[in-house]
Amino acid sequence: MKRTPPIQIDWKPDKKSVTPIYQQIVQFVCNRVAKGEWPIGTRLPSQRTLAESFGVNRSTIVTAIDELASYGIIEGCHGAGTQIVSNTWSLLLPPSPDWSNYVSSGFFKANHSTIQAINRLEFVPDMIRLGTGELDPRLFPKKIWQCVLEKLSQKMTSLGYLEPLGLPELREAISRHMKNLGIDAPPSCILVTSGSLQALQLISVCLLKNGSTIYTEAPTYLKSLQVFQSAGMKLSGIPMDDKGMQFGKMEQQLRKNNQQNSSILYTIPTNHNPTGITMSESRRKDLIDFCTANRLPIIEDGAYQELCFEGNPPGTLKSMDKAGMVIYLGSASKSFAPGLRIGWLIAAEPIVQRLGDVKMQTDYGASSISQWAFAELLSSGMYQNYLTDLKAELLRRRDHALAVLSLHYKDFADWTVPKGGFYIWLTLKVATNMERLFEKAAKNKILLNPGDIYDFEHNNSLRLSYAYTSCEEFKKAAITLADIIRNQL
Amino acid sequence: MKRTPPIQIDWKPDKKSVTPIYQQIVQFVCNRVAKGEWPIGTRLPSQRTLAESFGVNRSTIVTAIDELASYGIIEGCHGAGTQIVSNTWSLLLPPSPDWSNYVSSGFFKANHSTIQAINRLEFVPDMIRLGTGELDPRLFPKKIWQCVLEKLSQKMTSLGYLEPLGLPELREAISRHMKNLGIDAPPSCILVTSGSLQALQLISVCLLKNGSTIYTEAPTYLKSLQVFQSAGMKLSGIPMDDKGMQFGKMEQQLRKNNQQNSSILYTIPTNHNPTGITMSESRRKDLIDFCTANRLPIIEDGAYQELCFEGNPPGTLKSMDKAGMVIYLGSASKSFAPGLRIGWLIAAEPIVQRLGDVKMQTDYGASSISQWAFAELLSSGMYQNYLTDLKAELLRRRDHALAVLSLHYKDFADWTVPKGGFYIWLTLKVATNMERLFEKAAKNKILLNPGDIYDFEHNNSLRLSYAYTSCEEFKKAAITLADIIRNQL
Repeated sequence: MKRTPPIQIDWKPDKKSVTPIYQQIVQFVCNRVAKGEWPIGTRLPSQRTLAESFGVNRSTIVTAIDELASYGIIEGCHGAGTQIVSNTWSLLLPPSPDWSNYVSSGFFKANHSTIQAINRLEFVPDMIRLGTGELDPRLFPKKIWQCVLEKLSQKMTSLGYLEPLGLPELREAISRHMKNLGIDAPPSCILVTSGSLQALQLISVCLLKNGSTIYTEAPTYLKSLQVFQSAGMKLSGIPMDDKGMQFGKMEQQLRKNNQQNSSILYTIPTNHNPTGITMSESRRKDLIDFCTANRLPIIEDGAYQELCFEGNPPGTLKSMDKAGMVIYLGSASKSFAPGLRIGWLIAAEPIVQRLGDVKMQTDYGASSISQWAFAELLSSGMYQNYLTDLKAELLRRRDHALAVLSLHYKDFADWTVPKGGFYIWLTLKVATNMERLFEKAAKNKILLNPGDIYDFEHNNSLRLSYAYTSCEEFKKAAITLADIIRNQL
Repeated sequence: MKRTPPIQIDWKPDKKSVTPIYQQIVQFVCNRVAKGEWPIGTRLPSQRTLAESFGVNRSTIVTAIDELASYGIIEGCHGAGTQIVSNTWSLLLPPSPDWSNYVSSGFFKANHSTIQAINRLEFVPDMIRLGTGELDPRLFPKKIWQCVLEKLSQKMTSLGYLEPLGLPELREAISRHMKNLGIDAPPSCILVTSGSLQALQLISVCLLKNGSTIYTEAPTYLKSLQVFQSAGMKLSGIPMDDKGMQFGKMEQQLRKNNQQNSSILYTIPTNHNPTGITMSESRRKDLIDFCTANRLPIIEDGAYQELCFEGNPPGTLKSMDKAGMVIYLGSASKSFAPGLRIGWLIAAEPIVQRLGDVKMQTDYGASSISQWAFAELLSSGMYQNYLTDLKAELLRRRDHALAVLSLHYKDFADWTVPKGGFYIWLTLKVATNMERLFEKAAKNKILLNPGDIYDFEHNNSLRLSYAYTSCEEFKKAAITLADIIRNQL
């Protein structure tokens, strides 16, 4: 047998990490193998060399090698040292898809590391999360929830498989509830999903073709659109003004693509993520006309629809939809609790049926207990009361946040004034190194969501959220951040 | 514009159905359009002709056409009658994939209509479901469940997003619980899924390639394996004897395929669905050796693992797995309640991490309330007590079912004697028209699960289940069925 020289390794475990060092080594080797960088037959250096090059004890190496051997990834061959031998699960793992290929800009790739940093820093204690797109857990309505669970313990007498479209009681409650938004949908046109993300996934699998183009606001909530990218579809960003998406700008591109009959438009028209902008009534009407004329189907993401502070918000696109162009997505994640994993999709019956069939092949439906809980919330009227209180609290936080910005940010930034939802889109007037700003803020225990995460090209913005922090926390963090920005400018 | 002649329609609405006739017509047209049978430009016959050919009032046609027009599917063109015009969502619907292409036998296709009939007949009142693979809802432990919900209403103080791998408390509880099955898995090697079906789906998406071969028992629970077929993978059935899968029979085929390094083995070794067979201890050891030697990874479906009636069942494959060949799938669906939608997957950490990443892109994790509920069940010890009671009841039902079969089926059938789980596999000694048997039984209010549904070729068997029916129901239905069979023979 031909002996190949052992590989060179220029990596060291992180001794400050909470992960034990031998585990870091195991993970390192597994990742190399999984990525295909170390094919079968790759020889590892001797234990002594490994210990030296990692700067660790020999016993740590022995522990790591034992664990790797127990996975079947490595094996000692007499006279040939330790070799990579596995071609089982680990080697089946393909490398991570490179999403940036699918987005028209390279910025998303660079931002990937920011997203990872955010995910990590979210678990650091005492971090003030100034951009988190989630309700403050302290606002969770414990009393209402206890009441719901109590009722469930009487009502739920079994937990069998449910119908493909979801619990009939829940679909009826949603059908009634949607009338508040001007949407007249019978339960047969409603599909319960495990959050809106699953609805997008079902649409990408069932309705769209490889190579389809998804038109969407720029910036937008790109993370939720990864499902389209992973299915080989392209995202195309349409600029916004203070009235929403400037759809006229996509006419030329659309004409070119539409021949393939495979484009769709994805929009969050109300309390947009991340800008906080709400599309005006007249822009909505024009958009519907434009899409009808161009036969461009619309996905209307209504995640923040029910969080409008003012009395008469513009109607949903779905309520203006005469030609069946719109699929409406509702969700309990932003207005109530993401952990419930309850969303819903409203469309014509044959589409709902088909998506429901595929959902059954994917996970046999959403948790019945979550479905019962949300049905109870809706039909008891508790949800409407809760929403009223929640909106009052969010409005209070928004006003406070805007006041803080007016006092401390006027000289060097502009921002949007949202009419609902969670977000203020803050744009610095002078070009700034946002990565450095992110790092400096993190060192000061402030977690930022830089605008690049949401955009198709570099921007100079931050997504601020007043939903996750108390007024006091927001103020404290915003003032510190203003100092950091001033120093950096 | 060239006028094409209107299409001919040879279909009539079902006047006995509970679905309103105009809705049946709407669905009929939608389905034709969705399947691509009626492309854009297709002309419908005049309203008068439609009314005549459907045998309905003109006003019913008008209502149906109005609804179709509101979907944007049809449009009246002056001088050209009513035409199919939609190219929006409805037309994006591709035709149903033809699963039978992926299975080596044509029987599955024929059986598809049986599965649909079963799904329909399950909702008919007073039907005795003699083959249903679900626990009798009357066995649902209401007291325990109320106790769980009560504890949750104290413990669950928020419902935020969870970690990608699932609720840490649940993964710790599962980790401890799995020790009962000889599986030593830290929480970091456990991924919580929305039932086992989602675990299979994640494996098919992340770990397998198009064209991979899935080796599995014949018969097997084909329905759960559709996820593989839909991902372009092939199923290959391996015959069974009373000790389980006869894996030696696949050696030749495996050698041919294995060069592509893309085969896996899927097995339900304990209380197999649909045969009730439990793989013997020595067969298990041999299988592990065989798979290790052939580098053939194993998915061990443990859905019925915890429902063994006897004291010392054979160990799980995962507990014998030194080389990391086995991914173990656990589930609460068969032993507790399918509506909980809780399953778990045990594998090496890098695999669990990767599958968890993809899960997050699919649905952001399983319902937190379901996860909290199952964690509470497990860690309170209530689950173990419940299982003891459940197994005693299932054993009682099994013994009763076997006694009924001995009395009434001995002359014309053989059957397996399960050591746990739900199923008895009954095989008629003489070739029988199973479709006719299914229909005759249904007319006598007995719902059967014919063996063809589970097999790669025609068989002469039925999957009987003693889990869903009471002893009295089983007896009554089994005696009637015996008469029907005798008459048919």
